[in-house]
Amino acid sequence: MPSRSPYDLLNRKRRGEELSSDEIEWLVQAFTRGEVADYQMSAFLMATAIVGMTPEETAALTSAIVASGESWELGEELGFVADKHSTGGVGDKISLVLAPWVAACEVRIGMLSGRGLGHTGGTLDKLETIPGFRAGLSRAEMVRCIERTGCAIATSTDAIAPADRRIYALRDVTGTVESLPLITASIIAKKLAFGASFLLLDVKTGTGAFMATYETAHVLARSLLAAARGSGIRVEAMITNMDRPLGRAIGNASEVLEAMEVLGGGGPGDVLALARAQAERILLASGRFGPETASQALDDALASGAALEKAREWIAAQGGDPSFIDVPSKLGTPKHRKEILAPRSGFIDTIDTYRAGRIAVELGAGRRRQDDSIDPTAGIEVIATVGSAVREGDPIAVLSWSRDAVDAEELSARYLGSIAITEPPPIPIPLIHDILSEDEHGG
Amino acid sequence: MPSRSPYDLLNRKRRGEELSSDEIEWLVQAFTRGEVADYQMSAFLMATAIVGMTPEETAALTSAIVASGESWELGEELGFVADKHSTGGVGDKISLVLAPWVAACEVRIGMLSGRGLGHTGGTLDKLETIPGFRAGLSRAEMVRCIERTGCAIATSTDAIAPADRRIYALRDVTGTVESLPLITASIIAKKLAFGASFLLLDVKTGTGAFMATYETAHVLARSLLAAARGSGIRVEAMITNMDRPLGRAIGNASEVLEAMEVLGGGGPGDVLALARAQAERILLASGRFGPETASQALDDALASGAALEKAREWIAAQGGDPSFIDVPSKLGTPKHRKEILAPRSGFIDTIDTYRAGRIAVELGAGRRRQDDSIDPTAGIEVIATVGSAVREGDPIAVLSWSRDAVDAEELSARYLGSIAITEPPPIPIPLIHDILSEDEHGG
Repeated sequence: MPSRSPYDLLNRKRRGEELSSDEIEWLVQAFTRGEVADYQMSAFLMATAIVGMTPEETAALTSAIVASGESWELGEELGFVADKHSTGGVGDKISLVLAPWVAACEVRIGMLSGRGLGHTGGTLDKLETIPGFRAGLSRAEMVRCIERTGCAIATSTDAIAPADRRIYALRDVTGTVESLPLITASIIAKKLAFGASFLLLDVKTGTGAFMATYETAHVLARSLLAAARGSGIRVEAMITNMDRPLGRAIGNASEVLEAMEVLGGGGPGDVLALARAQAERILLASGRFGPETASQALDDALASGAALEKAREWIAAQGGDPSFIDVPSKLGTPKHRKEILAPRSGFIDTIDTYRAGRIAVELGAGRRRQDDSIDPTAGIEVIATVGSAVREGDPIAVLSWSRDAVDAEELSARYLGSIAITEPPPIPIPLIHDILSEDEHGG
Repeated sequence: MPSRSPYDLLNRKRRGEELSSDEIEWLVQAFTRGEVADYQMSAFLMATAIVGMTPEETAALTSAIVASGESWELGEELGFVADKHSTGGVGDKISLVLAPWVAACEVRIGMLSGRGLGHTGGTLDKLETIPGFRAGLSRAEMVRCIERTGCAIATSTDAIAPADRRIYALRDVTGTVESLPLITASIIAKKLAFGASFLLLDVKTGTGAFMATYETAHVLARSLLAAARGSGIRVEAMITNMDRPLGRAIGNASEVLEAMEVLGGGGPGDVLALARAQAERILLASGRFGPETASQALDDALASGAALEKAREWIAAQGGDPSFIDVPSKLGTPKHRKEILAPRSGFIDTIDTYRAGRIAVELGAGRRRQDDSIDPTAGIEVIATVGSAVREGDPIAVLSWSRDAVDAEELSARYLGSIAITEPPPIPIPLIHDILSEDEHGG
């Protein structure tokens, strides 16, 4: 008989015993109802972070979090609709490129996005730099936006997986953020509640990712796939490189502009390549394209201007003024800029991307505390990235910001401390390491 | 530099890193001040219960708990004064015999006692069955009582180790009661704050003890000794058998009466033997007795009636009416009694002492919930103990109680289910397994 005693469940979890699905679901429900106290849930989270969970326990935790709120089941209403989730990186503006590009190929895509976390940026913070843009959509508004324009990006609402928010708040203050089953359940629960037809997971690895090594990223990818199994949502996980910032722009307004550049046929090659690879997986998953027709459709959408046109349409549909695409200064101009010069000649061998992300946060692009506000103009322009040849005195990066409290000298020094310049050039690291799908990953 | 961030400390504890003494002390202080929340402390306790603590960490936790309240340092004021602590058992009324017996030999002894916990009885609950007995003594009252009569037993006050109370309350609801370092710190902190000259630890092992095996009891004894090391208090640990109830009486009033019987020269042999062994260690530790003179003094105190006279004097000094010693019915008479008869002839081979303790609780001798009240007349008289020969139909135990809600039929059946009757007689288990002292236990 399943236990209904938090004391008993905690005792058994502490001893490393496996809890039944029913018991884990009850625990989360009782926590949601206030019958299990914060201090009991935090003890459960700590026990889980130390002793781990079986795949069955993780799946039960995931579905309990889903059950704490609404299930939107967008795929049931909209036919094929794609979703994409990134585990977080520095300069990661892929969602902003992906959504209109996929929609321009007449495949539907919708995403719920969050704010920046730690050293990483958040799609929501970026979109909110667009005057008028409204990210808080109800389910009905999301559906209408996707039906009209083919895409939508909204903020996750309290209606979806509310237990995740409360659990995350506890993890954030009890040193239990780093836990494979807890990370897995948190990510997958929100995606299952959203209920797209296809979910593409971008699991980042490298100095700028939460999973620093390929091995840990691979373990996370497998865990995410396993937790989604049986949900009816087809899932793929792409393990991608975050050993350097993605693109040139780190910041909020600047990343929006860079995304638009890519949609207009320009922009940095890595952003283009990663967005393209993800868009292709989505087009293939829709069942309406083969490898060649997908590639052709994506080329056409860029070349014809349809992708950028779709971006204007989508931004306007969410209340934003797309005229910034032609007049970038409408997203604001930083009050201050500081060039960072190469201290010697050579090749950029490494950029400690975590540190670069932290510098952007210090400039005002992210939050040090939850209630901090963002400076939309703050950020880093990465002129010389990993592999770039530089000559002593060349500008390698530009810091920009508008607040007076910023200590630009110190941040410049930190930026220089986060890069290594060497001879000969570094061996290139592939942008995409691996693509795993439910079927292939065994289990 | 020691960390002052609960997040960082929890993170490191989760990963199995050792925290510095300074960090653990800060954590407990910040918890006491309300700067570290219950949900953070409970996560710390869970991490500790799973990954353990080094002896240095346990010692730091112990001294942090001591520092959360007053230090009474009785030894400094009173000269030699002994303290005794039992890890808890069923029928354990040794303190009630020990205190006046030792005092009758002109060696001072004082103890702070608690209420029954789980299936075990508490000295405080027993003493409170004596009309007028006042267990809530201030430090000054405790000192005065010991100076006047040579002994005192009081309830632990909020002034001593208040952090222990709050930590225990969290452990009690988060499944972290079973943890060697947490048990160790909780016991030793209160004893160090009390500050006797000599502490005798009675670590019980067997079916009625919290540590069921000799090995786990031995590990606890060593951990307790290690945590007290360097405190200036001399400590010994006696590992004693709790595979059967101690004496015949399990209950509150009945255990007080049995203790007085022993002091009067009668009573069950095991209670006499264990109290005597403990009293002897204390007399030796005082430095005023050698092995032979200690033994002689203890014999004399019983034979002359001085021990029982001391009990009267001490009880009166704490406000109690000692006339119950002559008129036992003054402690109340149970409304109901039920004999349990031997279902067949043979020898009592085992008594599951945990279950016997639980039956006493159900009769009203203990609490199922913290705010339950006690029925002083409730309990079990163990007529046939482990090793006793019984004939079918002989009474082997008597249940007594005064409340109407008791289901005596069910409890009788449970009692019979907790004993085994076999042929031939069981091999006797020694009452005292081992005596460990600081010096001998290595480390």
